[in-house]
Amino acid sequence: MRLGVCYYPEHWPQSMWEDDARRMKTLGIEQVRIGEFAWSRIEPAPGEYDWAWLDQAIDVLGNAGLKVVMCTPTATPPKWLIDRHPDILPVGANGRPRAFGSRRHYDFSSPSYFEASRTICTAVAERYGKHPAVAFWQTDNEYGCHNTVVSYSPAALARFREWLKARYQTIDALNRAWGTVFWSMEYRSFDEIDAPVETVTEAHPSHRLDYRRFASDEVARYNRMQVEIIRARSPGRPVAHNFMQLFNEFDHYKVAADLDVATWDSYPLGALDQQWFAPDLKAKWLRMGHPDFASFNHDVYRGMSKLPFWVMEQQPGPVNWADWNPAPLPGMVRLWSWEAFAHGAGCVSYFRWRQAPFAQEQMHAGLNTPDNRFDIGAHEAARVAQEIRAVAAANADADAAVRTKVALVYDYEAKWLFEIHPQGADFHYPRFAFEYYSALRALGFDVDVIPANAPLDGYALIVVPPLPVVPDDFAARVEASGAHVVFGPRSGSKTRDLRIPAQLPPGPLAALLPMRVWRVESLRPNVTETVRVDAQTEGRGRHWRDLIEVGEDPSLEVSARFADGHPAYVRRGSAHYFASVFDERLTEQLFARIAAEAGLTPRVLGDSVRVSRRGALTYMFNYGERAHGIDGVDAADFVIGTREIEPQGVAAYRTR
Amino acid sequence: MRLGVCYYPEHWPQSMWEDDARRMKTLGIEQVRIGEFAWSRIEPAPGEYDWAWLDQAIDVLGNAGLKVVMCTPTATPPKWLIDRHPDILPVGANGRPRAFGSRRHYDFSSPSYFEASRTICTAVAERYGKHPAVAFWQTDNEYGCHNTVVSYSPAALARFREWLKARYQTIDALNRAWGTVFWSMEYRSFDEIDAPVETVTEAHPSHRLDYRRFASDEVARYNRMQVEIIRARSPGRPVAHNFMQLFNEFDHYKVAADLDVATWDSYPLGALDQQWFAPDLKAKWLRMGHPDFASFNHDVYRGMSKLPFWVMEQQPGPVNWADWNPAPLPGMVRLWSWEAFAHGAGCVSYFRWRQAPFAQEQMHAGLNTPDNRFDIGAHEAARVAQEIRAVAAANADADAAVRTKVALVYDYEAKWLFEIHPQGADFHYPRFAFEYYSALRALGFDVDVIPANAPLDGYALIVVPPLPVVPDDFAARVEASGAHVVFGPRSGSKTRDLRIPAQLPPGPLAALLPMRVWRVESLRPNVTETVRVDAQTEGRGRHWRDLIEVGEDPSLEVSARFADGHPAYVRRGSAHYFASVFDERLTEQLFARIAAEAGLTPRVLGDSVRVSRRGALTYMFNYGERAHGIDGVDAADFVIGTREIEPQGVAAYRTR
Amino acid sequence: MRLGVCYYPEHWPQSMWEDDARRMKTLGIEQVRIGEFAWSRIEPAPGEYDWAWLDQAIDVLGNAGLKVVMCTPTATPPKWLIDRHPDILPVGANGRPRAFGSRRHYDFSSPSYFEASRTICTAVAERYGKHPAVAFWQTDNEYGCHNTVVSYSPAALARFREWLKARYQTIDALNRAWGTVFWSMEYRSFDEIDAPVETVTEAHPSHRLDYRRFASDEVARYNRMQVEIIRARSPGRPVAHNFMQLFNEFDHYKVAADLDVATWDSYPLGALDQQWFAPDLKAKWLRMGHPDFASFNHDVYRGMSKLPFWVMEQQPGPVNWADWNPAPLPGMVRLWSWEAFAHGAGCVSYFRWRQAPFAQEQMHAGLNTPDNRFDIGAHEAARVAQEIRAVAAANADADAAVRTKVALVYDYEAKWLFEIHPQGADFHYPRFAFEYYSALRALGFDVDVIPANAPLDGYALIVVPPLPVVPDDFAARVEASGAHVVFGPRSGSKTRDLRIPAQLPPGPLAALLPMRVWRVESLRPNVTETVRVDAQTEGRGRHWRDLIEVGEDPSLEVSARFADGHPAYVRRGSAHYFASVFDERLTEQLFARIAAEAGLTPRVLGDSVRVSRRGALTYMFNYGERAHGIDGVDAADFVIGTREIEPQGVAAYRTR
Repeated sequence: MRLGVCYYPEHWPQSMWEDDARRMKTLGIEQVRIGEFAWSRIEPAPGEYDWAWLDQAIDVLGNAGLKVVMCTPTATPPKWLIDRHPDILPVGANGRPRAFGSRRHYDFSSPSYFEASRTICTAVAERYGKHPAVAFWQTDNEYGCHNTVVSYSPAALARFREWLKARYQTIDALNRAWGTVFWSMEYRSFDEIDAPVETVTEAHPSHRLDYRRFASDEVARYNRMQVEIIRARSPGRPVAHNFMQLFNEFDHYKVAADLDVATWDSYPLGALDQQWFAPDLKAKWLRMGHPDFASFNHDVYRGMSKLPFWVMEQQPGPVNWADWNPAPLPGMVRLWSWEAFAHGAGCVSYFRWRQAPFAQEQMHAGLNTPDNRFDIGAHEAARVAQEIRAVAAANADADAAVRTKVALVYDYEAKWLFEIHPQGADFHYPRFAFEYYSALRALGFDVDVIPANAPLDGYALIVVPPLPVVPDDFAARVEASGAHVVFGPRSGSKTRDLRIPAQLPPGPLAALLPMRVWRVESLRPNVTETVRVDAQTEGRGRHWRDLIEVGEDPSLEVSARFADGHPAYVRRGSAHYFASVFDERLTEQLFARIAAEAGLTPRVLGDSVRVSRRGALTYMFNYGERAHGIDGVDAADFVIGTREIEPQGVAAYRTR
Repeated sequence: MRLGVCYYPEHWPQSMWEDDARRMKTLGIEQVRIGEFAWSRIEPAPGEYDWAWLDQAIDVLGNAGLKVVMCTPTATPPKWLIDRHPDILPVGANGRPRAFGSRRHYDFSSPSYFEASRTICTAVAERYGKHPAVAFWQTDNEYGCHNTVVSYSPAALARFREWLKARYQTIDALNRAWGTVFWSMEYRSFDEIDAPVETVTEAHPSHRLDYRRFASDEVARYNRMQVEIIRARSPGRPVAHNFMQLFNEFDHYKVAADLDVATWDSYPLGALDQQWFAPDLKAKWLRMGHPDFASFNHDVYRGMSKLPFWVMEQQPGPVNWADWNPAPLPGMVRLWSWEAFAHGAGCVSYFRWRQAPFAQEQMHAGLNTPDNRFDIGAHEAARVAQEIRAVAAANADADAAVRTKVALVYDYEAKWLFEIHPQGADFHYPRFAFEYYSALRALGFDVDVIPANAPLDGYALIVVPPLPVVPDDFAARVEASGAHVVFGPRSGSKTRDLRIPAQLPPGPLAALLPMRVWRVESLRPNVTETVRVDAQTEGRGRHWRDLIEVGEDPSLEVSARFADGHPAYVRRGSAHYFASVFDERLTEQLFARIAAEAGLTPRVLGDSVRVSRRGALTYMFNYGERAHGIDGVDAADFVIGTREIEPQGVAAYRTR
Repeated sequence: MRLGVCYYPEHWPQSMWEDDARRMKTLGIEQVRIGEFAWSRIEPAPGEYDWAWLDQAIDVLGNAGLKVVMCTPTATPPKWLIDRHPDILPVGANGRPRAFGSRRHYDFSSPSYFEASRTICTAVAERYGKHPAVAFWQTDNEYGCHNTVVSYSPAALARFREWLKARYQTIDALNRAWGTVFWSMEYRSFDEIDAPVETVTEAHPSHRLDYRRFASDEVARYNRMQVEIIRARSPGRPVAHNFMQLFNEFDHYKVAADLDVATWDSYPLGALDQQWFAPDLKAKWLRMGHPDFASFNHDVYRGMSKLPFWVMEQQPGPVNWADWNPAPLPGMVRLWSWEAFAHGAGCVSYFRWRQAPFAQEQMHAGLNTPDNRFDIGAHEAARVAQEIRAVAAANADADAAVRTKVALVYDYEAKWLFEIHPQGADFHYPRFAFEYYSALRALGFDVDVIPANAPLDGYALIVVPPLPVVPDDFAARVEASGAHVVFGPRSGSKTRDLRIPAQLPPGPLAALLPMRVWRVESLRPNVTETVRVDAQTEGRGRHWRDLIEVGEDPSLEVSARFADGHPAYVRRGSAHYFASVFDERLTEQLFARIAAEAGLTPRVLGDSVRVSRRGALTYMFNYGERAHGIDGVDAADFVIGTREIEPQGVAAYRTR
């Protein structure tokens, strides 16, 4: 567990650098990320490199005892490169290039950019690959930010056709897989296929899904190129990429597979403003963030990181990029930092060292104000640094991996598929996955977020938000695991080619749940359906109904029904299927029951307090407005805090 | 009265066809529509026709005793044709071609497409024009679907200029008619005229209206070409086109004039979700559809069809294309089917035989599920088929034409004009026309929907929703008919060139109603005005107020006033004029009074029960949630149902 | 004080002109604006001028004793000119030309149009510059209407680069000023700079602000060209431009600096519908307009006009261009007219003489209906003309300039800056400026609206809505004036280059208010913060919070705090700073206190009655629904009205 910071020496006079480094150390910061937007300073004109300033910056940091996370600068190609190769610009759905003048103005499929990236990455890796201060690498920055995964350029189209050829081999196979006979959309060759855009009405869903998969694969291909260049020139230094919270436009699992560390950017207040939360929740958690949002992302990135994941950018104060940008309550920067560590983080790195007084992000707070005084976040970071030392001193296994018996399956293609083929306008995959996650957290569970093809052994409870395409071996793996498994509606409803399974949904899940979803309906926001579990327990189904034919197999039980008699919740043994998106309270109630059956012990926490376990320590966080008392823990066991957690407070105690 | 189905043999293995045909017969289906999206299978490569499969499909159907409705496949030109003639693609208001990849990707004005259509229609008509199984034809499919009437292509512009030349003869005449002197918009030749799009602020309304008229005429011209090809090659087979509910972007009367049968697609639940209804109504009628929406369309298409109209596509279960897609309540497919017949339908044809497991419409239900089992709709269709036989056995005139003394004028140009020139942002012509229609239906009347130039003789009550451009002879024809006539606000407010009449509104209606609308105002949604009819009767004016100067003619009476004293409802003898869009209750009350004056007998039904009369039978439909008792009918007179209609129930009894 | 009218002889048969002129005189109209949209009649073909009709029209008006306001016709270039020079068309943010077919279809930066404008203006000015009936000139019409200030054409880009060169001299200076090092946006030459549009995410804010400044300067340059042509050919005739209410896309002060008269278009009902007011206010003031909206604009244009400002277009009845277009209550046209005069207007000119029955504005009322009868507005105008004579007879100084000790600073760049760089999505500069203005008016003050660089001497109270860029000498000028000054939040928060000041906000205002805004936060619409002034006084902060560090200077007092203790209102002596946008009631309460301290006497009027003073007269206006009694005025002192003002009434009495 250590602290880091994001730093832009190129934004400040060289005369400030040494003092900056000294003050970082004062706060207890150990690592410094640099360089990800510095291309125009590294190569101010074609082929003319200016290393002097960067050599100096790295030396200053290294000499101060700081570890450098060196970045490739490819997120911001300079103007001269764009003017030489205008085909670098991505093309929007409106057919127009997305212009230079901000960042991420490049097309993953552009051969010119692939080549230019190779050149600059090689130059940077050659220069600093073995520099003693350089301890880690970051490729590019925030792939996908500003909706930049999908491009409709000629270069993308050419590569998409190749990608299709590789996938389907023959055009007949593609026509059959997609079902292009519908509406006479048949192709005679791969070269007849366009990007699925600007069509008269919706383009073919299989076509669209493949375009999304292709675009995602292009990101992985591009990243792999960078990783290989770095590995060859900087052996022994872990390579990271810095992901963004819930930017789901590419398959993070595939990119992470080529990395050593997955890192992400945690902006709890900006996220609250931008995500799906209702206005009253946005007001309620205004200056704290939603208690489960950062945690969900921690668990997402922990799962895909070979080394402990990092928060590469931690919100230190107000940001600039949400519609409204409130300030965190005092204490929240510390709380968020500890929450990351509790979820297994190896590093929490604040963004940024000092608020820049110019350009797009001039209203984004840093650890220092633009007039170079420590802001609240800096003081809280210093406190965290002290506490880290205390925790480490008290516990040998403070850096232990997080272990849990509860898993939640999260799938990127599911999001694309439901966007392309929603059937109900508000069927929102990340939101529903988050609701399941949040219910588990409200019951006190630590949660592994895993892909559908992950090993399932060792789990007692596996929760599967609506998973349209279920791997063929999933049912077998679940059974082998012995875990209880809960599926959301629409699970198993599609084949990999985005078709309806031949025997209808739940497709391959019928092996676990011998039933037939013979009809579905999507529900308007002002329509919900009563779900009755038993005399004491009822709730509402929202958004969706799977109408289930249970057939004659007596092992398939109907555990809840809708008011019109259709099954709302069916199970066979340890396999459970929800036919609707239940309201949050009912979801939590049912998860608690199932967890208990699975031998787990739920702990009902309400909406404001959260618990995490790492190594020998239990961490508690209070997002609420009132102090929270912890019962049953010996005062001597507290490493951080006491038995009374104040609002915005943190406690950590030894788990007996 | 007979049942049909839409079938896509090209989507299924040939091995299934015979069984499909057999099972259709089992249900009582008599006709099968095929081929409208099959171009890429009929002509897989330029000039290479593959008739074998289609010959076979038609033979299988014919051999099973089914009548085939053969379609021209022009709704979905194949990719090779588009690649050869990219000018086929329509051009959007943003100046970009609307791409291949779904359907209807053609420009009605493209000479290449006109020629290609001629060729494929000729080929199909030559091949099957005299085939014994082919009993009917359908041209293309759903003209106008996905907003495809208006295109901004160079081809459209060239033809628009020709169209203007034909209409105005000289450019001076056009300049005078439009009033282009305003804002120096004068033209020196027809070749200076562009499409009215992408202008700095709103384009000239007369220009825009003419562009809409032109685009509509292009549809009629295109359809006429197809009809002529078919008629020449398939004598004796009625030719239909299949319209969509309230797709008003072209003048259906003009297209229907060239046809034998007007058919339409009835999707009551999809329509409810997509149309103007408020969210609470969308929840209320969620699984039934609005009780007057299908009826309104039945009456629209009945009026323009030379032979009895058909429902070519009847919703059989949930659809895929609305924002939310609920399932019909059990019984509704039967109810909708009988409602169509009660309104005069010759055929109700379900869409589709079997849900396709692939492509854009894979979530659209059919009579069979994708795993080829009969769905609820199939069972209800079978019941309808039985009941048709019972009705036919009991009544010689079951197929009689619908006769009524109540007419409602519906005008396509009115919709375009109010869209172009709304003056109040929510002045919604189809909605207001529907509200008048619905009020008449709630009073138990059968309604003929007619164009403004239709003969008016034989009607006792004619309701005219806001009709901006009134034909010159309309007043005379109304007077000759002796009917009571009710005009909505803004009637007679514009000349054919979209100008204000010289003597102000109501223009030519002043012959009936000697008054002067000297001022108008549109009202925000949160502003309504009290309307007082008499001590017992008052309501609200919404959306609009015509301020009327009644002049000195004592025969013009003010029957209701607004709170500020302005007339709200004036009449002279049997001519009535509403100066606002009254709330639905007041509208119904006033219609009831006027109908009584006209010698008709209103029957107040409320919002859930509806009555229709065809031949000797009276049909009743229960859209509500409670059973409805029918008084005063002898139990022996029921041919369908009993004196107690269950929810979603149908009754038919002999009218004494 | 005199009345005028806007007249379009080219829209009507020549045979009507003499009668029109005669009837204008009947109403008491003295001046007539003509010609601003008549280019296609003046020059129907390239180089072919048709002066005959215009000579005749001017003669008819002049012979009737009417003064002509002659316009240049450049707001509507004819089609032949566009076809010859397509580069005249402005280019939208989507990269596409904005087409011919309405008005204002020209690019201020187009060299072709600059030249064509020079030619037509010269021709018109040569022809009529010394005509005895031509008393005034108007350049073009409503610069900026329909969002036409900013264009993205190649011509604009070329001139933008020149503009940047002139501003920054070297590319390094620009890079430094903007801070392009952020995200590697550095430029190597001015020719590398593009328009800030279509970027992947937000373009650089300094870049955007400079583009807005450039576009604004282009308007001033274009207008100056016209003014110079006219001045040289029509000596002694004042030159006006006709601005639109709150069309803030260019700096009106800069354009007005080249004019003799600033005129504006007052459409109180259209404005109410289009502006930011909440739906309930739009309903409340539906047929009166907001009581402060026209006044605010009067005061804006009074301030920038060398001669008394005019209302060039006064709403006479319903308009056509708002979403909903209600009719003014009887009396409102008179009320609006007198309100303009009370605020210092030299002329109120109605738009238009007669409602045109054709083209885009056919639903826009005039003084005459299309069938040439006087409408309500005409009768009210005639009454105003009579009253003007009575007022003039009774008061030698009826035309005196308005004098007041209260000023409000209004700044165009502030609006652009907050649009480009809002930080809170609803930070709406004109709305907040209007709220401050409205609070002052509700306290009975006359208000000068002034630019930030205006002389401040003579004012007792200066109100400064959020002013991000404060002139360097502003603090000194305020201090020299001795006035109390109130700053809104975010004042002094940016430098001219759109950076954060080196010592943080309030930047140069720290000279007045020695404090440090160390953090800010924007607040969602459903979040407000309590502001406590004293035991009796509290309110809500909305939209924004500046978090202020007051430092050790004891002269800086905290006059109100937020619930969490942060200062909400600080002052030092006569300088006041509000750290949030207070609710309207609290704003008014605080303004009343500060005004009293400044030696002024607030008069609490509520929301419906307004007072203005000009010369020896006090004018009162009743926007409310109930009569309003005036106490303490001698009945004999009334020149208009009595001590009881009816709703929609006006009173004027001698101020003792």
